[in-house]
Amino acid sequence: MAYPHVIVVGGGFAGLYASRVFADQPVKVTVVDRANYHLFQPLLYQVATAGLSAPDIASPIRHLTAKAPNIEVRLAEVTRVDLANKKVSLREASGDDQQLSYDFLLLAAGVRHSYFGHDDWEEFAPGLKSLDDALEIRRRVLLAFEAAETCEDPAHRDALLTFVVVGGGPTGVELAGALGELSRFTVARDFRAIDPTRAKIILVEAGPRILSGFPEKLSTAAQFSLRELGVDVRVGTAVSDITADGVHTANGFIASRTVLWGAGVAAAPLTKTLGVELDRAGRVKVEKDLSIPGHPEAFVVGDLAAFPTADGRGLPGVAQVAIQGGRFAARQILATLDKQPRAGFVYNDKGNMATIGRASGLAHIGRIQLSGFLGWLGWLLVHLVFLIGFRNRLQVLLEWAWAWFTFQRGARLILGQSSLPPSKKP
Amino acid sequence: MAYPHVIVVGGGFAGLYASRVFADQPVKVTVVDRANYHLFQPLLYQVATAGLSAPDIASPIRHLTAKAPNIEVRLAEVTRVDLANKKVSLREASGDDQQLSYDFLLLAAGVRHSYFGHDDWEEFAPGLKSLDDALEIRRRVLLAFEAAETCEDPAHRDALLTFVVVGGGPTGVELAGALGELSRFTVARDFRAIDPTRAKIILVEAGPRILSGFPEKLSTAAQFSLRELGVDVRVGTAVSDITADGVHTANGFIASRTVLWGAGVAAAPLTKTLGVELDRAGRVKVEKDLSIPGHPEAFVVGDLAAFPTADGRGLPGVAQVAIQGGRFAARQILATLDKQPRAGFVYNDKGNMATIGRASGLAHIGRIQLSGFLGWLGWLLVHLVFLIGFRNRLQVLLEWAWAWFTFQRGARLILGQSSLPPSKKP
Repeated sequence: MAYPHVIVVGGGFAGLYASRVFADQPVKVTVVDRANYHLFQPLLYQVATAGLSAPDIASPIRHLTAKAPNIEVRLAEVTRVDLANKKVSLREASGDDQQLSYDFLLLAAGVRHSYFGHDDWEEFAPGLKSLDDALEIRRRVLLAFEAAETCEDPAHRDALLTFVVVGGGPTGVELAGALGELSRFTVARDFRAIDPTRAKIILVEAGPRILSGFPEKLSTAAQFSLRELGVDVRVGTAVSDITADGVHTANGFIASRTVLWGAGVAAAPLTKTLGVELDRAGRVKVEKDLSIPGHPEAFVVGDLAAFPTADGRGLPGVAQVAIQGGRFAARQILATLDKQPRAGFVYNDKGNMATIGRASGLAHIGRIQLSGFLGWLGWLLVHLVFLIGFRNRLQVLLEWAWAWFTFQRGARLILGQSSLPPSKKP
Repeated sequence: MAYPHVIVVGGGFAGLYASRVFADQPVKVTVVDRANYHLFQPLLYQVATAGLSAPDIASPIRHLTAKAPNIEVRLAEVTRVDLANKKVSLREASGDDQQLSYDFLLLAAGVRHSYFGHDDWEEFAPGLKSLDDALEIRRRVLLAFEAAETCEDPAHRDALLTFVVVGGGPTGVELAGALGELSRFTVARDFRAIDPTRAKIILVEAGPRILSGFPEKLSTAAQFSLRELGVDVRVGTAVSDITADGVHTANGFIASRTVLWGAGVAAAPLTKTLGVELDRAGRVKVEKDLSIPGHPEAFVVGDLAAFPTADGRGLPGVAQVAIQGGRFAARQILATLDKQPRAGFVYNDKGNMATIGRASGLAHIGRIQLSGFLGWLGWLLVHLVFLIGFRNRLQVLLEWAWAWFTFQRGARLILGQSSLPPSKKP
């Protein structure tokens, strides 16, 4: 007898933890992802700021599921989902197009950064979602220092040494903190003509405070820690345009050759092929059991799901929601095969964390609110425990210990093209 | 009084070790390189075969010279050398063109792979000289397995699972050995439709034996070790053409979608701007003191120099020649400033080494010839000791220990585009 076929789209937290539930169960599973690796996204900003190397925070999906013979992995892009006929269209690594039929679908394709309709900003303000994004940001940041070192024009040099991070959420705050550390400590003595410690790092947030998902006390602590690292935090500052020369805000123009985007995300375009109701960010409105209305065999989990919470705000786009959702949906599929009734998904909020530079962090776990060094220790512990795969954990710990004691960052390599895009100014 | 200005072109072994001689001496030094990192090239094949990550074998040149205030580093491409007027033309990272004047020049720009006039082969058979090359090879090798996994056509699948390495020198041998290990052990259990252990790895060499720089006994030992890892060694097999579909040799066509080039090198095109006598590979014919004839202030070191040895064959293109030559030339410059006479360069041959897979190596040191496990231990020791920078050494040791005990390779990530170039066949 052929086992029911489950297709898992996406090998991020939701897809990977769902697959693990299916290991050695009476189902045939196909995990489809367009990358060959599972990425530990909470540490991606460390790759972007030269603290960690790409392989430290990523493992091949194949390898992570190799021990379960009922799980198959395909490197392919999912181009279309046909809910009515239970089929998924793929574009394979070989360039071929294929269709796969499923009995159950688990859609966990995640989100990309979104420019709120200003897609032309992407060229000047890359976002941070994939390893390729992180390597591109690393390249731009390091090249800006290199170009500044030999720049004769003072105004142009200032623009090269001004780094603007748009968006005061966890990604923006962590990026800005890491840039502060990079300029104040890591490369401080490496240059002759410029003084990297005088580089301007500006964090721009449209709302009234950074880290709005945290209690106000922790936002204030974060802002203080960022200032310690030399980061200029500008709240209540909406961005109106981004060009090759800088950022236009409600409070004036900031000349900068390196702008990083941490402001908005939108669902993978794939959701548009479903023909079901989406929310404004393109996420799929799901039932209480994470299935698509009218399609009990198709689940949407992780960042891609718009879950009906009591307050109508949905669930945050964090790893814990994806992990718990992935596991939950996989268990519902197994329960259905056992002819058991479905449950409703309940998110168990384990807390919220962020880190700022080398020894300051924030942790909000139930009633506990930690900031400063204690917050950082909590962050360190949780991130090491959750890093997938023992090798990576050891490696990352070693990198961190090394970076911590020496102020050095090991991955300061400029890969790919070693020139900056031209400014529009002469 | 202004110190004399020394320009060092290239931050490889020759340039870096020369710079270290200049540290805190009465000269002003500018090191120019188009990469921001010094690369430990002997381990580059490990990055290409997913054993090490890029930052493990590279350190920023700035960082390596940061403690010497008289040394300045510029990220720029040298486009022209004007020996008569003692000027060097640069293209900076900012895109600007500049000219620098020197009192002494140390040219150590190294070599690139060369296709013996068949530049159209490069697209189908990438060589291995830079980190970007290594990441491209890693991408192609891993993608070939991915594409084979979902390929329905048996002939096409066989071509995807056939890896041809052209050239039986140390690079080719080490690449082929590492590919043997990758397919036989590392990814052996990761696939469902294909059996990676049945992948064909073919090492093609035009000459009568591989590793012709080693004694014949060691060549034979290497060939034996390669066969143990499943590598098909074909000597006396000249390549006549390389296309998207495979390799045409004197002994027939090999259908392969992944061809790697380890056969030939040629000097950086920069040497052509010198207007001095070059050898067939474009290397500069130097005097006994490594200076350019008629230009005692300009030295050429490392792979770029054609040194007048007694046997007329020149010196091999290995790290030791570059390190010793760089140091020697730097000392000649300091001696000249002290009004001391010049010496002639004498290469102190410390031996020759190569490794094949996980526990087999070759070492030829004076009268000592080691092969197998002993050869590998010797190789390991020497490479760890010479890796630049303590952090990298520790990191690499850890990666190796991990890979050795688990058969795993940590850096199996496909970065950049995740699709293969199309085959010419339908």
